[in-house]
Amino acid sequence: MAYERKNIQAMAAYVPGEQIDAPGILKLNTNENPYPPTPRVSEALARCDVARLRQYPPPTARNLANAIAKLHGLSGENVIVTNGGDELLRMAIATFVETTQSIAVARPTYTLYQVLAAAHGCGMAVFELDDNWQMPDNYGELLNHSGARMAFLVNPHAPSGTLVPVGQIKELAATYNGVLLLDEAYIDFVDPDIAYDSAQLVRDHDNVLILRTFSKGYSLAGLRMAYGLASPALIGALMKTKDSYNTDLISQALAQAAIEDQEYAHDTWQRVRGERTVVTQALRKVGYVVPDSQSNFILAAVPPGLEAEATYLALKEQGILVRYFKSEDRLQDKLRITIGTPEDNRRLLGALAAF
Amino acid sequence: MAYERKNIQAMAAYVPGEQIDAPGILKLNTNENPYPPTPRVSEALARCDVARLRQYPPPTARNLANAIAKLHGLSGENVIVTNGGDELLRMAIATFVETTQSIAVARPTYTLYQVLAAAHGCGMAVFELDDNWQMPDNYGELLNHSGARMAFLVNPHAPSGTLVPVGQIKELAATYNGVLLLDEAYIDFVDPDIAYDSAQLVRDHDNVLILRTFSKGYSLAGLRMAYGLASPALIGALMKTKDSYNTDLISQALAQAAIEDQEYAHDTWQRVRGERTVVTQALRKVGYVVPDSQSNFILAAVPPGLEAEATYLALKEQGILVRYFKSEDRLQDKLRITIGTPEDNRRLLGALAAF
Repeated sequence: MAYERKNIQAMAAYVPGEQIDAPGILKLNTNENPYPPTPRVSEALARCDVARLRQYPPPTARNLANAIAKLHGLSGENVIVTNGGDELLRMAIATFVETTQSIAVARPTYTLYQVLAAAHGCGMAVFELDDNWQMPDNYGELLNHSGARMAFLVNPHAPSGTLVPVGQIKELAATYNGVLLLDEAYIDFVDPDIAYDSAQLVRDHDNVLILRTFSKGYSLAGLRMAYGLASPALIGALMKTKDSYNTDLISQALAQAAIEDQEYAHDTWQRVRGERTVVTQALRKVGYVVPDSQSNFILAAVPPGLEAEATYLALKEQGILVRYFKSEDRLQDKLRITIGTPEDNRRLLGALAAF
Repeated sequence: MAYERKNIQAMAAYVPGEQIDAPGILKLNTNENPYPPTPRVSEALARCDVARLRQYPPPTARNLANAIAKLHGLSGENVIVTNGGDELLRMAIATFVETTQSIAVARPTYTLYQVLAAAHGCGMAVFELDDNWQMPDNYGELLNHSGARMAFLVNPHAPSGTLVPVGQIKELAATYNGVLLLDEAYIDFVDPDIAYDSAQLVRDHDNVLILRTFSKGYSLAGLRMAYGLASPALIGALMKTKDSYNTDLISQALAQAAIEDQEYAHDTWQRVRGERTVVTQALRKVGYVVPDSQSNFILAAVPPGLEAEATYLALKEQGILVRYFKSEDRLQDKLRITIGTPEDNRRLLGALAAF
C-alpha cells in the first residue's frame, strides 16, 4: 500500500541539470559561476572552530542576516536566511498558499515551481509570456482574476535571461492582491547601468518577497545558502514555518565572508557580463537567435537546419553539457547555455562552429 | 492584511532551548554532546576544496548515504540524508499527511511535533503516556481508531529518557496502519547490552520511518545533518518532496568523516553513559526522583520543598542552563538535564546541593 498523499503519488520529482563530475567535462548546464568564491571564504573556513560544532548554530543566522540587511539598506527584520533558494520557494508556498488554492506562473519559467506546487498539493494557474518573454498586459488584474494567492516571477527571466524593469514590477505589486515572489537568483549579473533596485520594492510593497542566493553571484552553489527580503510581516510568517535551525554554522560563516567581499563578487559579475556579450555576438554571427541576456546564461535558438536536441547531444558527446528542455513546446528549438570562463566559452563556440 | 494561511496566523513558533553563548555559561539544556567531534572532522574540513563550492553538491549525498547504509546493514535505497532531523520530521508530515488528516503523539513528547502539525495545517491526536512514560495498552489499535496517518514515537523517550524495547515497537508497527515515525535522535546513548536493533524494524515493516541524527551522537549539532531509514517506498516518496539540494558539500564530507570513526563516537557515548549513572545516583541521593535514562539527559523531579521553576531560575542565575517545560502539566515539578563532562556535572551537582 502507498502511504504518501495522492498528490505525491501522482507527481514526478524535479529533475536537476545533469551533474557529471568527471575530468574534462565542461558544465554549462546549471548556471554555476565559472569563478571560485573569494579567497576570504577559504580564510573563513580555516578559522572554523570544529569543537563549536557540537552546539546548535544561531537559529536565524543573525550575524549574516545583519550583513545582508546592511548590504541592501534594509533592516534585519526584512531578512530570512535559508538553506538554498529551494527552501525559500518551498516554504513560501507552504506559508502563504492553502492546498485548496493555487500559485501562478508565467510560462516558460523555472520548472521547479510546478514541482513544488504538486508537492504541496495546491493548484497552478499558468499564463503565457509573449514572444519576447514579456508578461501579459494587465498581468496584475489577470492574477487577481485567477485567484492565485502567490505569483512567481523570475527576474532576470529564466530561461531567456531578459529583465523586467523595476517600474513594471512595482506596478504589478501594487495591482496584485496576493504575494509576489520575485526570484532574483540571477540579479547580480544585471548591467549596473540599469540601476535595478529591489530594496525599494521591499520598502514600498508589503506583498513582495524577493529571493536572493549565494549560489550564483557568490560562487557558492555547493554551500546551499540563500535569503529572502520582504516586509517584516511576510518574514515573520516565514520564520514560523522554517526548520528551527535551517542553516549550519560553517555555511553561515562562509556566506558572510563572501557577501562582505563585494569587490571580488562585482569583479566576477563584470567578467561574466563581458563574456556574455562575446558569446551572444559569436552565436548571432553564425545564425543563432539570442535575446539580450541580463543573466549568467543565454537562451539560443539554433539556426535553420540544426536541431536543438541533436546539438545538445552532439555537445554532450564532446563533454560539453548545456541545457535542453525537452518538455517545453516553445523551447524545442533552443538551448540554455551558461556563460563560462573565456576558455570555456571558446571551447563551446569551437564545438558549435564545427556543426 | 495578512497573507499567510490561517493556521500559520494562529500558531506560535517553536521555542528552542536558550542558546546563550557567553563565557562561563554551562549549557545542559539542549542535549548537546559535551565532547567535540572526532579529530577526523577537522581533517575532513582541512581537505575541503573551496573552489569546488561554486558547483552544486551531490543532490542525495550519495557517498554519505552509502556509508550510512553500510553502518546499518541496509541498502542505499533505505536512506535519505536530511538537513537536520527537523527537515525529516517536517518533510514526513508534508509527504504522508493530508491537511485534512492528523498525526498522533503520546504526551509528553518533543514539543516540535505539534508546531509542525500546526504549520502543515493538519490535526493532532494526543494520547497520554502512563506514569512510567509507557505507551497506552493497545496503542496500535487506538491509533488506527483515531485515523491518524502518522504517529510519532521518540525512543528513547524525550523528556524522560526511558526506552521502549524493539519488540514492543515491532508489535506497534505491525498493528498500526499508518506511518510510524520513530525518532531515534538519542539512540546512540542506549546501553549496548540492550542490543537495540532498529535496522530490523526497517527490514520487516514497510511503514516504519526512523530518524537518526549527527547532532547528538556525533557531536555535530552545528552542522545540521541527519538521516531517515525506511523501506524504499517511503524513502522514494520523501525523495520527491525534499529540496533538490538539501545538504551542502562541506556538511556531507564532515558527517561522513564522523560516521566513519565509530570508535571515537562509541567512546563519547560510553563516557556519557558513565556520567549519566553518576548524576542519576547523586540526584536520587538528595531526594530527586529520576527514572533510569537511556539517553544523554535525565528527567529529574525536584524533592519536596523545592520548586522546579525556582530551581531552574536559581541555576540560571549561576550560569547553568537546564530545561524547564512551563506549559506541560506533568512536567511542572521536573527539570530536564543534559549529561555533561565530569567537570560540568560536578558544577551542576554542587549548585543543586547548595539549594
